[in-house]
Amino acid sequence: MQQYTQQISTNAQGRKLYDITPQVLDWANQLGFNTGLLTLYIQHTSASLLINENYDDDVLVDMEAFFKRLVPDGDDLFIHTVEGPDDMPAHVRSALTQTSLSIPILQGKLALGQWQGIFLFEHRHMPATRCIILHALGD
Amino acid sequence: MQQYTQQISTNAQGRKLYDITPQVLDWANQLGFNTGLLTLYIQHTSASLLINENYDDDVLVDMEAFFKRLVPDGDDLFIHTVEGPDDMPAHVRSALTQTSLSIPILQGKLALGQWQGIFLFEHRHMPATRCIILHALGD
Amino acid sequence: MQQYTQQISTNAQGRKLYDITPQVLDWANQLGFNTGLLTLYIQHTSASLLINENYDDDVLVDMEAFFKRLVPDGDDLFIHTVEGPDDMPAHVRSALTQTSLSIPILQGKLALGQWQGIFLFEHRHMPATRCIILHALGD
Repeated sequence: MQQYTQQISTNAQGRKLYDITPQVLDWANQLGFNTGLLTLYIQHTSASLLINENYDDDVLVDMEAFFKRLVPDGDDLFIHTVEGPDDMPAHVRSALTQTSLSIPILQGKLALGQWQGIFLFEHRHMPATRCIILHALGD
Repeated sequence: MQQYTQQISTNAQGRKLYDITPQVLDWANQLGFNTGLLTLYIQHTSASLLINENYDDDVLVDMEAFFKRLVPDGDDLFIHTVEGPDDMPAHVRSALTQTSLSIPILQGKLALGQWQGIFLFEHRHMPATRCIILHALGD
Repeated sequence: MQQYTQQISTNAQGRKLYDITPQVLDWANQLGFNTGLLTLYIQHTSASLLINENYDDDVLVDMEAFFKRLVPDGDDLFIHTVEGPDDMPAHVRSALTQTSLSIPILQGKLALGQWQGIFLFEHRHMPATRCIILHALGD
């Protein structure tokens, strides 16, 4: 069994779901693994990872709308407001979604379902460079 | 180190938590690994994975009740309603739970805690066939 | 490729986020892996894992405050109340956070981001001993 790693950097331009599927597939598909396991890890606590529907962009709008309502910016509940009204909500939204994801590789392909895409979920309003580590092992 | 993969199909009959622990254990326990790592991956965005209490069925009822209240069907917030009032709520409920899970194998056994079961969490009301990929590696 | 496992026990003294980063790093850093993957798995359904901001303790206070409001103790919604008003809320809080986490090892170090810590999120008020399994593979 072999393993490889790669770093992806995304220049997020504010709160939104960013589709990183193409970058992940480009890297995973050239590894030459027939069978394996790909792990994604995001090195942040104000941005997270999400497997989500990749067909209708309205899903991305609705997902953001739901999290905005569930974890409102400027909530009086929060005392950690040093970086602004979206600081603590970004940490909570990260906690409610994923910091790591693992996806099998089958018959030479990443085993994403037909309607699945891999997204970086940026939770801050300001632009930020986000780093995602890819780790793959397999034969 | 060796690796193996398997696909589990579950015929979900509407929104509910389905206990898939027996199928996972059956497969994992015959691999002959003393030490290893099992990863489960669900290929859907309207159904998800959950490690949950497996002793009292009331926990399953309450878990569903909580998510139903947190992410109401037919919510006016959502614009992606193409497949009905439970379409977008299913995506949100998936985002709030798990698409992948990894569980160590120790001394020849999957290291589930005493009260832990592995569940498919179906979020749509209509019947659906759901595919879960199992990947195991170990010695 | 080699693999190793380890068990961490934490004596949680009630509902709180407990920083387990030092224990995890101590173990991971002495494995001698240049490249690898560390997986953490918690064997409970009333306590969970979380990657969270590790710099300002106010984040921990706010995170707990958010979950307390989102999943109130003693909620009339719940029928599984056998162990008290925080029993079912503990299961829901676990479902909304993580049972497993995977973190790559790069250049001999666990690839945590600069502001990331690894936390045990205890959801019960009473003291409890919580077991976390560590699994690492690499070269």
